[in-house]
Amino acid sequence: MFASRILRRISVRTLSSYNYTKAAAILANSPLDKKDGILQLSSSYPKDVSIPKIVVETSTTPLRIRMEQFIRNLQESIVREIETIDGKKFLIDRWERTQGGGGVSCILQNGNVFEKAGVNVSIVHGDLPEPALQQMKSRQKDIDPSKGPFPFFALGISIVMHPHNPHVPTIHLNYRYFEIDSGSSKIWWFGGGSDLTPSYLYEEDAIHFHETLKDACDKHDLTYYPKFKKWCDDYFFLKHREESRGVGGIFFDDLDDKSEEEIFAFVKQCGLSFLPSYTPLIKRRMNAKFTENEKMWQQLRRGRYVEFNLIWDRGTKFGLQTPGARIESIFMSLPLTARWEYQHKPIENSREDELLKVLKHPRDWV
Amino acid sequence: MFASRILRRISVRTLSSYNYTKAAAILANSPLDKKDGILQLSSSYPKDVSIPKIVVETSTTPLRIRMEQFIRNLQESIVREIETIDGKKFLIDRWERTQGGGGVSCILQNGNVFEKAGVNVSIVHGDLPEPALQQMKSRQKDIDPSKGPFPFFALGISIVMHPHNPHVPTIHLNYRYFEIDSGSSKIWWFGGGSDLTPSYLYEEDAIHFHETLKDACDKHDLTYYPKFKKWCDDYFFLKHREESRGVGGIFFDDLDDKSEEEIFAFVKQCGLSFLPSYTPLIKRRMNAKFTENEKMWQQLRRGRYVEFNLIWDRGTKFGLQTPGARIESIFMSLPLTARWEYQHKPIENSREDELLKVLKHPRDWV
Repeated sequence: MFASRILRRISVRTLSSYNYTKAAAILANSPLDKKDGILQLSSSYPKDVSIPKIVVETSTTPLRIRMEQFIRNLQESIVREIETIDGKKFLIDRWERTQGGGGVSCILQNGNVFEKAGVNVSIVHGDLPEPALQQMKSRQKDIDPSKGPFPFFALGISIVMHPHNPHVPTIHLNYRYFEIDSGSSKIWWFGGGSDLTPSYLYEEDAIHFHETLKDACDKHDLTYYPKFKKWCDDYFFLKHREESRGVGGIFFDDLDDKSEEEIFAFVKQCGLSFLPSYTPLIKRRMNAKFTENEKMWQQLRRGRYVEFNLIWDRGTKFGLQTPGARIESIFMSLPLTARWEYQHKPIENSREDELLKVLKHPRDWV
Repeated sequence: MFASRILRRISVRTLSSYNYTKAAAILANSPLDKKDGILQLSSSYPKDVSIPKIVVETSTTPLRIRMEQFIRNLQESIVREIETIDGKKFLIDRWERTQGGGGVSCILQNGNVFEKAGVNVSIVHGDLPEPALQQMKSRQKDIDPSKGPFPFFALGISIVMHPHNPHVPTIHLNYRYFEIDSGSSKIWWFGGGSDLTPSYLYEEDAIHFHETLKDACDKHDLTYYPKFKKWCDDYFFLKHREESRGVGGIFFDDLDDKSEEEIFAFVKQCGLSFLPSYTPLIKRRMNAKFTENEKMWQQLRRGRYVEFNLIWDRGTKFGLQTPGARIESIFMSLPLTARWEYQHKPIENSREDELLKVLKHPRDWV
């Protein structure tokens, strides 16, 4: 056990010095880790193929190491599948953080299907600075900021995909694990979620997306989906516009209400639901015809996406306040192109107006 | 005197109910108010035509009424001049704030020279909410937030102009007057400034811009320009990118170190310097040829502009926290189009790289 941890540390350290091409080659050739629950999903994802429940496995390997392995494998499987759909390769960009840790950013830009798609993994550690601690309001009961700084580990996978075609929705996913050594104890929690941002509403797409997430939640806790669906609606809300970012999904933070192993199993389930929740929507709409006006509307919606991320998103704020944070990885969530028109108002009862109505009044999709 | 104030109030109230077309007609026909220092500037602005010093005039009319008159007239003269250059008319959009006050937003979108240009005046009053007070850190010595809310008046003119041609710089101007009734006394101050954001560096343009601002400052206080130039460099700085937004200009806030009348005279001088500081640059570059790559670079720089405004700008934050604030007027500063590319790096010693170097190391231009 000890030996394997040493080996792990060495291999991580060795990998860090590899250049991009080598890292890409390693990712391309490394087999998927079946033990850790990664499934080789077919590229068709018929609606009735259910994903088996991820079982709770106890292990002596520290959870943060297994979470790291899981998100690395998930990143790889998603990058492969999206490359197959798009036909263009991701740029695989390894980076290190001088204060500790690093990550792999996989970016596809100006692809055939995607204007910009990013699948990032980051594994950072070090001492938590006070401004970052200020962002974790709900943790302030457990930690006295004046006693800091505190050693921390933060691992996560973040995905944002902005397609060219205005009929294919933008998707976002993030799952993260946080560990803080408060001196007297280990404080840990999971956070994350996934949400869909269409420019044009297709009810069947919103239903499929929510059903897939609900299935994942229901395998672990029947209270999760309704709770996390509402949390998502509340979180991805542009207060200054009084509208939601999109048709929602699930969102949770500070999740530590069960054992670490149980929540890890749930988070894995959610991560593995990404491709089945999204790829049918891409395939259904990626070749749809669209007009110049539809493209313009998509650009305006992208402007709103930028507003949410730069004004309200806690993850972005946290990132900007973490010394040595990698701006380019944080901002991979921003679209390639966006637009702001003064006082743009869609024609009443148009398809654009129909979307706005749903953004003003979030619906229950399942 | 009292009668004229009543008349003023009535005319403001009456105007508020006018529709856009009527407001536009009124603005188009109303003569410039010579008494208040508005000059009929020629459209050529040869460098050696100096603008006379705005004299300090005492008046029994409250300063906020005279400031309102000044910014309304300034708005009109700038709108007229920019329309002459562009050939397209501004949309004149009057709005009211239910909590008190309102404004006039003049927007030119998809013009011949300008992609988006906004010249806004807002005159708002009401009770200052605590979150907005929190943004005024430097005022917390004078005001105890727990004793609030406090009646306030806030008047200002804001200008942002984003040209189509990547060789014409973006410009920003804002001058504002703030008055708070703290119960025991009237607290007042002026703030504002103007700064230039080129996509391509033309040293002669930066020099002309700074010289014009320095001339305006020097007419009132020789210490102003060096102090406010530095303040501008410090303020319009994207901490997360470690770069300036542009080549700077002047910026000041909480200015109350002289009499109200003296600072008002200075602010008028600055406002009247807008056209002479900018129009020669437009005329010099608006017909310059540009490549697709140069346009792309401009779009990336616009992305940075969006980042500054949404992440760092105190004015935007203040606006978003003011109940009943008019989002569309606040966001007129955002460009029509913007772009974010992952890890974009200009070729070394290219013209794009040359700009970045200046943004990393602000220069003294005069």
